[in-house]
Amino acid sequence: MRWTQTFLYTQKENPSDADIVSQSLFVRAGFIKKLSSGIYYYSPLMLRAIRKLEAIIREEHEKIGAIEIMMPILHPRPLWEETGRWEEMGPGLLKLKNRNDHWFCLGATHEEACVDYVRNDLRSWRDLPKIIYQIQTKFRDEIRPRFGLLRGREFIMKDAYSFHATAEDAQKTYWLMYKTYQKIFNRLGITYRVVQADSGNIGGAINHEFQLLASAGEDALLVSEGSDFAANIEICEALPIGPEIQEPQKQLEKIHTPGVRTIQQLSDFLKLPPSRLVKTLFIHSEGVASTENTAQTFAILIRGDHELNLVKVKNYLGLSNPPRLLEDHEVTKVCGANPGSCGPIGLEIPILVDRSVAQMTNLIVGANQDDWHVINVNMYRDFTPHHIGDFRMAQEGDPDPTHPQYKLRSYRGIEVGHVFYLGTKYSEKMHLYYTTPEGHQKPVEMGCYGIGVTRTLQAIIEQSHDQDGMIWPIAVSPFQVHLCVLDIKDQPIMEWVEKMERDCEQAGIEILVDDRDERPGVKFKDADLLGFPYRINLGKKNYEKGMVEIIHRKTKEKVELPPQNAINYLKEKILCSLRTSENEKP
Amino acid sequence: MRWTQTFLYTQKENPSDADIVSQSLFVRAGFIKKLSSGIYYYSPLMLRAIRKLEAIIREEHEKIGAIEIMMPILHPRPLWEETGRWEEMGPGLLKLKNRNDHWFCLGATHEEACVDYVRNDLRSWRDLPKIIYQIQTKFRDEIRPRFGLLRGREFIMKDAYSFHATAEDAQKTYWLMYKTYQKIFNRLGITYRVVQADSGNIGGAINHEFQLLASAGEDALLVSEGSDFAANIEICEALPIGPEIQEPQKQLEKIHTPGVRTIQQLSDFLKLPPSRLVKTLFIHSEGVASTENTAQTFAILIRGDHELNLVKVKNYLGLSNPPRLLEDHEVTKVCGANPGSCGPIGLEIPILVDRSVAQMTNLIVGANQDDWHVINVNMYRDFTPHHIGDFRMAQEGDPDPTHPQYKLRSYRGIEVGHVFYLGTKYSEKMHLYYTTPEGHQKPVEMGCYGIGVTRTLQAIIEQSHDQDGMIWPIAVSPFQVHLCVLDIKDQPIMEWVEKMERDCEQAGIEILVDDRDERPGVKFKDADLLGFPYRINLGKKNYEKGMVEIIHRKTKEKVELPPQNAINYLKEKILCSLRTSENEKP
Repeated sequence: MRWTQTFLYTQKENPSDADIVSQSLFVRAGFIKKLSSGIYYYSPLMLRAIRKLEAIIREEHEKIGAIEIMMPILHPRPLWEETGRWEEMGPGLLKLKNRNDHWFCLGATHEEACVDYVRNDLRSWRDLPKIIYQIQTKFRDEIRPRFGLLRGREFIMKDAYSFHATAEDAQKTYWLMYKTYQKIFNRLGITYRVVQADSGNIGGAINHEFQLLASAGEDALLVSEGSDFAANIEICEALPIGPEIQEPQKQLEKIHTPGVRTIQQLSDFLKLPPSRLVKTLFIHSEGVASTENTAQTFAILIRGDHELNLVKVKNYLGLSNPPRLLEDHEVTKVCGANPGSCGPIGLEIPILVDRSVAQMTNLIVGANQDDWHVINVNMYRDFTPHHIGDFRMAQEGDPDPTHPQYKLRSYRGIEVGHVFYLGTKYSEKMHLYYTTPEGHQKPVEMGCYGIGVTRTLQAIIEQSHDQDGMIWPIAVSPFQVHLCVLDIKDQPIMEWVEKMERDCEQAGIEILVDDRDERPGVKFKDADLLGFPYRINLGKKNYEKGMVEIIHRKTKEKVELPPQNAINYLKEKILCSLRTSENEKP
Repeated sequence: MRWTQTFLYTQKENPSDADIVSQSLFVRAGFIKKLSSGIYYYSPLMLRAIRKLEAIIREEHEKIGAIEIMMPILHPRPLWEETGRWEEMGPGLLKLKNRNDHWFCLGATHEEACVDYVRNDLRSWRDLPKIIYQIQTKFRDEIRPRFGLLRGREFIMKDAYSFHATAEDAQKTYWLMYKTYQKIFNRLGITYRVVQADSGNIGGAINHEFQLLASAGEDALLVSEGSDFAANIEICEALPIGPEIQEPQKQLEKIHTPGVRTIQQLSDFLKLPPSRLVKTLFIHSEGVASTENTAQTFAILIRGDHELNLVKVKNYLGLSNPPRLLEDHEVTKVCGANPGSCGPIGLEIPILVDRSVAQMTNLIVGANQDDWHVINVNMYRDFTPHHIGDFRMAQEGDPDPTHPQYKLRSYRGIEVGHVFYLGTKYSEKMHLYYTTPEGHQKPVEMGCYGIGVTRTLQAIIEQSHDQDGMIWPIAVSPFQVHLCVLDIKDQPIMEWVEKMERDCEQAGIEILVDDRDERPGVKFKDADLLGFPYRINLGKKNYEKGMVEIIHRKTKEKVELPPQNAINYLKEKILCSLRTSENEKP
């Protein structure tokens, strides 16, 4: 492909609205162009990268017998009402009413649709198992789209759904899909971690996220230094941490703490570390799902140096979405004091207590009266907990919950894949039952599995770039070779270029020829920005000396070769590398 | 591919809501499954056919240097307001408001988006020309979706946009694209006509539709028996037809016509053929665009045996959409009588007169008084025409407007492609200007070009089927060979099947193996329904005789061959046929 024959315009300036490097680089290299917040055009180069990633995904899915279909984007409301997710998905689901006043949503995920697709046909155990997938544009109405393709309103995803007779079989496929995802991400040559995670609006009992590591990643991960344990901080179990000092219970005492509003102020005032103090927080849960927890407002006690984890509270309460913290004026209504002077004593709402707090004696808490605190508060004696559980954020340095002798280390990640074992959540609600060999009707066991296609591509560049631009891994690089022709009017050079293009085509190597009438400096800068694995510099001076330069984008290693050897050099480098990544074992 | 390894369920019964044969066959063969009115799932087989058609489209577009990108589906309202089409497109454009109260529409066509994509980069004559295209899901909110994929709410289209410095260059590309479309449709092996057509909401001065001929087609076409002329009836010029009798003007006379409401009744009453009578019709044009025609209600005189063509009225008035006929009560308000007794005399609104009426004398029209008509009415003497023009539908047997010695013949067609030379309609409104070599700023000349991907596939089957099922042309058939294995438990047979699968893969032939545990009759019926070009019947009895049967789906020709010769036979038949269609000259 010649540069002048495609549509390729780069820009020097970083876009003013870019939040992270990969977004800047994608815009500067013309890979994406913004139409509206979170909505992007994909350029010819971007489309090539998309097609390559899609091809890898398809190959690995076909190897395990997954079947590709295409489901609609427009879903009628009754479909989503079958599972209750028309409401449950919240405002992230884009909804519209058509000319006949019928409501539709734009597919954000396709559990409902896929169950609908199969439910008239998968009737017998003989029809099971099946894995069905599609690669398609999806939509989510982000409150504040940002980070380019990482948090957009419109994006391409691969989503797969599996259907099974038994839970065992579903879990077997779950782990098969887990391995398939490892193969896919290994082929991309990226650094990633598989972590336990929250199942969000999708649900199900087991799930893992595939997190590409990048310092600008939105997700916080905790990974054991010694074991296989890795989890998204959202759900990472935080073991109870024992108090530094074990004391016998002392007598309750009210102390005047004028102007003290924060844990830090209280710590300074009392000359005690925050880990000796206890925060009282209040949450409100719209529509509590679990029947045992009908109350809507809860108090939660957390150690002063710990952070509340709302996803854990959500999961304990059985909610669809995390609860919200009360506003200041609501707090005052509940406990009679401003936030900063709240405590558990005398509250008429259920009190949730974090496990680390439960191990403390003689707590220091607010007195539910402005400018007053209480010391030597003891659980069961001075207040009754509704439930003691794991409600805090785990943090770096915490013990690995599976092997407490190891510590957790913290990473940032970008979620590029997520696998779920769903059980019968969807099949029961949508009446997807099959007949067993014994003639019984049983709900079909399911799993679902997603990879963000456009998101993965930008995440790769978030992980793989330098100050000069993108550094594409060979497997998904739009082109593998970038040929900078420095003398486009020189007859022998242009003949060599044509021959090189033919040779590359024959060898299955993709080459972009920069044939613009531009200065070498401009071409080199653009080549670095676009970041294909190998660059050839071809100028008259070198050519007449019988040399071309080949530069490896990542290492900046430079070799000089006689022109006739260039194609063999590239063949060896590129085709070997692709073969290796295809056959790599996770 | 093995039948039991994919997701493939056929049904015997025609779906109750199918309007035409191809829709029934698609549903019965499991190619599509309805999610909602006009919204369908695409099965694994359908997806294979889609990918093949897309590949042909891509190949032919790449040959002419067209550049593939992908544009968003969600378009923000301000984009469409730049051209006024946010309103102009009417209720067919699906619109939605997101959580931030911003309006979006779902892309129905991408002229605005594509101009937006290029407008910051195409600045100089050096950047031109460019042809840009995408293949993508599009949306249109049909009032009454029907005919399966032919008139759906969600469908896949290829849309291309071209950008040029001059009108000549734009038109050169227009005809290049026209030829590319011919190549594409020729490769599919279908019967089609290229016809002049209305440019609808797209606009532009020249346009042609590619119409696949099928008796159930929605479009009426008129094709000259002797010349190249062919047109959609919507815009087919109707030459004025002279009156059968030429008479001197006679005196106006009012006649009592009790109970006469229709042309047929008047014809019976007066014992005159409908061609001697004149209908007076009334239309209302919401928002007349042309400044000369500010009136909103017009009367139109049409010969009794002719039909009014609202698209011609739309184009004469310069409207975006065809005007509507007045309701009965509105007619009475305008002319004082019920429809059936209306005429031009005394009307205070502009009167449009069809050319055939303008050649008549002594017209017979309604008296604008119920149960009365007037005879011997003459234009200019008894009423004044606002405009004489071509307002009627052309019809079979009319003279070819380019060579009146030939007659027009009527066909039904399904529009599968449409090419438009747009001029500067979009570039002027959206400020897409380029700098000429002389340094002047000029609006970019444009063309746009569409092919309905999913629509074409169903249209092919509407044209190509028999009572047993679909008959796929090789070029887009999901598989080329359908192997019915009649003894799936026979070891030597299954070994031959495996070898056949390997041989096919090596030869680039796609084979579906029906390995279900079903009776031969069921397999044969399904093979006929799916309609791949070649079927192999492989049963134990024949195999032991050293024979397999190969049946050509279209001709039902049957050959018997030794099993080892089957692959060579198929290679010759299939690969030759594909090569021929690729190289075929239109």
